[in-house]
Amino acid sequence: MNPFEALEFRLSLGSDNHSGVHPKVMQAIIDANRGHAHAYGLDEVCRLAELEFTRVFGPDVMVQYVFTGTAANVLALSTGLKSYNGVITSEVSHLHLDECGAPEKFLGGKLWTLPSIDGRIRPEQSADVLDRMGDQHFSQPKIVSLTLPTELGVTYTLDELHAWRKFTRAKGLLLHLDGARLANAAATMGCSLKELTSGLGVDLVSLGGTKNGLMGAEAVLIFNPDLKADFKYLRKQAMQLSSKTRFLAAQFYAYLKDDLWRDIARHSTKAAADLAEQLKSVPELEVVHPVQSNALFVRLPKSWVKPLRERIFFYIWDHEQNICRWMLGFDWRAADTNTLLSHIHEVKKCFPIK
Amino acid sequence: MNPFEALEFRLSLGSDNHSGVHPKVMQAIIDANRGHAHAYGLDEVCRLAELEFTRVFGPDVMVQYVFTGTAANVLALSTGLKSYNGVITSEVSHLHLDECGAPEKFLGGKLWTLPSIDGRIRPEQSADVLDRMGDQHFSQPKIVSLTLPTELGVTYTLDELHAWRKFTRAKGLLLHLDGARLANAAATMGCSLKELTSGLGVDLVSLGGTKNGLMGAEAVLIFNPDLKADFKYLRKQAMQLSSKTRFLAAQFYAYLKDDLWRDIARHSTKAAADLAEQLKSVPELEVVHPVQSNALFVRLPKSWVKPLRERIFFYIWDHEQNICRWMLGFDWRAADTNTLLSHIHEVKKCFPIK
Amino acid sequence: MNPFEALEFRLSLGSDNHSGVHPKVMQAIIDANRGHAHAYGLDEVCRLAELEFTRVFGPDVMVQYVFTGTAANVLALSTGLKSYNGVITSEVSHLHLDECGAPEKFLGGKLWTLPSIDGRIRPEQSADVLDRMGDQHFSQPKIVSLTLPTELGVTYTLDELHAWRKFTRAKGLLLHLDGARLANAAATMGCSLKELTSGLGVDLVSLGGTKNGLMGAEAVLIFNPDLKADFKYLRKQAMQLSSKTRFLAAQFYAYLKDDLWRDIARHSTKAAADLAEQLKSVPELEVVHPVQSNALFVRLPKSWVKPLRERIFFYIWDHEQNICRWMLGFDWRAADTNTLLSHIHEVKKCFPIK
Amino acid sequence: MNPFEALEFRLSLGSDNHSGVHPKVMQAIIDANRGHAHAYGLDEVCRLAELEFTRVFGPDVMVQYVFTGTAANVLALSTGLKSYNGVITSEVSHLHLDECGAPEKFLGGKLWTLPSIDGRIRPEQSADVLDRMGDQHFSQPKIVSLTLPTELGVTYTLDELHAWRKFTRAKGLLLHLDGARLANAAATMGCSLKELTSGLGVDLVSLGGTKNGLMGAEAVLIFNPDLKADFKYLRKQAMQLSSKTRFLAAQFYAYLKDDLWRDIARHSTKAAADLAEQLKSVPELEVVHPVQSNALFVRLPKSWVKPLRERIFFYIWDHEQNICRWMLGFDWRAADTNTLLSHIHEVKKCFPIK
Repeated sequence: MNPFEALEFRLSLGSDNHSGVHPKVMQAIIDANRGHAHAYGLDEVCRLAELEFTRVFGPDVMVQYVFTGTAANVLALSTGLKSYNGVITSEVSHLHLDECGAPEKFLGGKLWTLPSIDGRIRPEQSADVLDRMGDQHFSQPKIVSLTLPTELGVTYTLDELHAWRKFTRAKGLLLHLDGARLANAAATMGCSLKELTSGLGVDLVSLGGTKNGLMGAEAVLIFNPDLKADFKYLRKQAMQLSSKTRFLAAQFYAYLKDDLWRDIARHSTKAAADLAEQLKSVPELEVVHPVQSNALFVRLPKSWVKPLRERIFFYIWDHEQNICRWMLGFDWRAADTNTLLSHIHEVKKCFPIK
Repeated sequence: MNPFEALEFRLSLGSDNHSGVHPKVMQAIIDANRGHAHAYGLDEVCRLAELEFTRVFGPDVMVQYVFTGTAANVLALSTGLKSYNGVITSEVSHLHLDECGAPEKFLGGKLWTLPSIDGRIRPEQSADVLDRMGDQHFSQPKIVSLTLPTELGVTYTLDELHAWRKFTRAKGLLLHLDGARLANAAATMGCSLKELTSGLGVDLVSLGGTKNGLMGAEAVLIFNPDLKADFKYLRKQAMQLSSKTRFLAAQFYAYLKDDLWRDIARHSTKAAADLAEQLKSVPELEVVHPVQSNALFVRLPKSWVKPLRERIFFYIWDHEQNICRWMLGFDWRAADTNTLLSHIHEVKKCFPIK
Repeated sequence: MNPFEALEFRLSLGSDNHSGVHPKVMQAIIDANRGHAHAYGLDEVCRLAELEFTRVFGPDVMVQYVFTGTAANVLALSTGLKSYNGVITSEVSHLHLDECGAPEKFLGGKLWTLPSIDGRIRPEQSADVLDRMGDQHFSQPKIVSLTLPTELGVTYTLDELHAWRKFTRAKGLLLHLDGARLANAAATMGCSLKELTSGLGVDLVSLGGTKNGLMGAEAVLIFNPDLKADFKYLRKQAMQLSSKTRFLAAQFYAYLKDDLWRDIARHSTKAAADLAEQLKSVPELEVVHPVQSNALFVRLPKSWVKPLRERIFFYIWDHEQNICRWMLGFDWRAADTNTLLSHIHEVKKCFPIK
Repeated sequence: MNPFEALEFRLSLGSDNHSGVHPKVMQAIIDANRGHAHAYGLDEVCRLAELEFTRVFGPDVMVQYVFTGTAANVLALSTGLKSYNGVITSEVSHLHLDECGAPEKFLGGKLWTLPSIDGRIRPEQSADVLDRMGDQHFSQPKIVSLTLPTELGVTYTLDELHAWRKFTRAKGLLLHLDGARLANAAATMGCSLKELTSGLGVDLVSLGGTKNGLMGAEAVLIFNPDLKADFKYLRKQAMQLSSKTRFLAAQFYAYLKDDLWRDIARHSTKAAADLAEQLKSVPELEVVHPVQSNALFVRLPKSWVKPLRERIFFYIWDHEQNICRWMLGFDWRAADTNTLLSHIHEVKKCFPIK
């Protein structure tokens, strides 16, 4: 008997980490549970998963598992920074707003934040920060961290990314991608993961897994050969060295094998686009950022927020403007969209807007 | 088809984390994979697991999950320390020798280490360190961290633990237990987990799971009410906040439910004792510490180390003295003991000692 | 013979720390050089200086010396922060722009910066940051740090400061003043130092000395009794514990004795105001912030910057707008103003603006 | 009138930092107080002092001033360490026992301490620590820090130092000297400062000034070219960047000019040797370490400690064994030795030993 049978597992728009584990990922975990295996990444499952990473990201990738997206970001950055260095990032980045100071604590350095549109930043915005290179009073910028897709669900164009790469190289900076939902960006942009990483010449990538159907695993991808040697020590010191690593590797193995990542990303991205399309029939709602991943940001009539949230959970992104974030997981079904729409129509009836 | 079918999963004495996942724990993970649930510990599986913790450890326990034993130790300590504080611990503790400086990095403070016998330390040894309380030049001791069982597999008596508790209270110090294998100590000592924690009045416990059959989950137990409020922020800042927490909680739920922990601990502890008993028939081998958990430390003839290690993997603890650590996982079988013994006899035949 | 006789010591507008030591301060240093004295703040000169601090700042002040303004800021803040906390400050604050990440490194936490006018910030601007109090993903604001006068030489009114004090108390925040030039603000505002500190109910003050004629000494003033106990350990750990402390104390003794601080502050503040007045005769120059301390920010014709800077050194604050900072030290004389003006007129003649 | 005239400045054996400032050093400070000079080390006095450093230590030295010995140690080490690195040092080193965790806090790493005789350690003692090079669970040793003379006033031979240098090079380690009283070692060993630093091939030196007659200035000397570039940022981030640097430089200028350092060191070292000689006439006293600098460690009859300490202050080094440290400053006179001896004889008479 399932002890969790009686518990409530209600449909949620709260986050893609409100979803559980993709069946193929769960099966890989079960499959990896055989006999004894070396700990700390030296087992055979890790070796097999590594081959998939090489196939998908190219031969230069070094892949290392960590437990959370915050850890992936901070540890990726840690390979290229000294404590007097700073990171240039958007002022709405996860790094800045949602990691409770983990970057400052572990890196000992600074985030230089830039204002953004849809979470996107442009090279020329960093002029002021770069102006003080060499000034000992000023935390020295060393890495640019872009989020793809941004925290507001929006992608960059390949040209924009190449421009950033050209810019960072010219300025002696490293380039990091926070790719907690990189697969969704790839789906929208019609790119391979290779094109978005090694093909682009980025130095460091935080590759998300948990938000795309894994149970709990993220990967740091290091492409720049100068940044590889320290990683194992930094990860252990950051308390992110898994012992039974085969169970992290198995998740990523399943995720990359036969490009399951693409199926998942296309599904949730399309589900979001479909939902956006259907919302056009409700003129009281306004989708406020381009829908280019599995997230919608929707401005609701003020009186609708509470009753709709009681029917299906979601986060309020901007309390003043009543902008809410609706995030669709890998397991979102057309039926769920219908359920949501009927909730909306019900609320519309009960809370008419004068 | 299982993609990992062809891989090698060989019997190992390397560590109890070379074992996989206990079937009941795996089943709980599978059972928790239903629909949507809140992230970050606010789900119903967490609530259910908490009830088990309260039953086993008493009503005052606050339980928080983290990913690794290092994280459990460092985060437990972080609740009671300022950066100018130090931790008194044994010079063979995991904190000191096996965490790559994670305590120093995250806590910003110092470890004051004491020489030990079998990993055990005594209150009076800390006199020199406590002598400089109030001296601004000296990192101020604030927590005593005991390992139970010690890194050498040895337990303290309840009287010794009570003496430490009395001592730390008298000196204004907090008491932490590194219990990566606490269940094994409880099995040996014939105690409940409550007796070893809240019953003893300890402030903080790192409770191991991964080394006892879980896939990857550790718990910080906080009993001292003054140390509870900060934890959630510290954990996030330490990059240890799990999103799909239900899958950590499910593991501990299964581990505590119907006292599975005790069955596992008794089994592996007894397996170690049985093995020690059988080793008496091989006079060339010497068991060098009391066998009071699932570990044996065995001095081998120098010429045996390499060939035996080729037959079954284990770590060499002391290269000069040829002392090896043999660690028995939850899944160790009588047949495995026989296999090991036949390896030993084979090696004995091939590498006779003059 | 003075070995430094032949060296160049040219008039400078670069900073008030380009000046040397006030004669009365130097005399006190010489006077303190008698026989043996306890180190680390336990000597009699320290005791005498403390009496002056109590007289000037009130009986609740705890005074502790450090070596630099950065250290005063960071150590003052450290008494009230845990690593998951953040500091609310202006985006042009010294803390943020001129301390090379020292706050992030030592505090392990975050600066939440607010846009400012003339370096001044208002309570209502912090609403967004305070909105996420209690959210474990967000570095928790705990201290507001105001600079008085601001980095742009502008003061707050007493009413504005009281409003900040009321606001921080209501929100459970602490209030810190970065007073690297607090004396200048007092001179402009016609206040005593007590009115600006204990009278206001601030918790923590960084009191500058070096920029007001001391050789090299800053003081942390702690008024909040809860923040006093840890300081001595934090200072030592921050490498700021002076051994021959009498020579720091002697400087502050002279600075406070007979209110020398006020004479110095009035002198340099008046010199700045006089200079601003005289600059009105040069319509090509624009003073761009209110002149309320010993600093002027002057927009120069682009072609004047280089030749004028060759005649007398100063820093360019804003390269795009050709705004320069002119800082007048304690030893600025009317004759120096004349020299500067004749330089300006010379440059005006040689580099006419079409 | 000297405001400190009435204060007590009693003869002390407490530390060489209980002494004031050497007259020649004070004169240089006064001489440097002329007009305006650039801040932050860019002035002409700094340039002149640098020439003296080059003369005394050789052309490869990079010299940087800091405020305290703790800062000199921590910042010197910071140039060569990543946070997962550790420092090998003696278990009685200042780094370990007297810096309140500053190394752990700023470096984020670990100290590996070795037992010592007279504070001296030998290369072969580090075998255990070096054994785990490459093991990600273990903080990786990177620098050896020797104290010269040791905290117990004892020197190494040149051969021993060369052996350490050879050893560290062979192991890929850097070599740091904590030379808070390096001049005293040079005086005893009959060496130049060059022979003990660049001549030896050390990478990093903390050169003490304050304990040798300076008011308050220490220097970090960097010889290894790979370690030079980061220093300026690290120092600012460590809150050790002086603004009116000319007053630190002037102190060292005077200290090195005409080898004043040697006169001072010879004087206090000889004074200590003379005192040790004269103590032979008091058989109740035992000098417990070789006297090779300006320190004596003296075992006193238990009943003498309190009364003698009331007559002249000193620190009790070992409370159980009644071993006291007597430290002779640059200004110790033969008359002071006589005073001390008459105190001893007085105590001897009043507190006879049965």
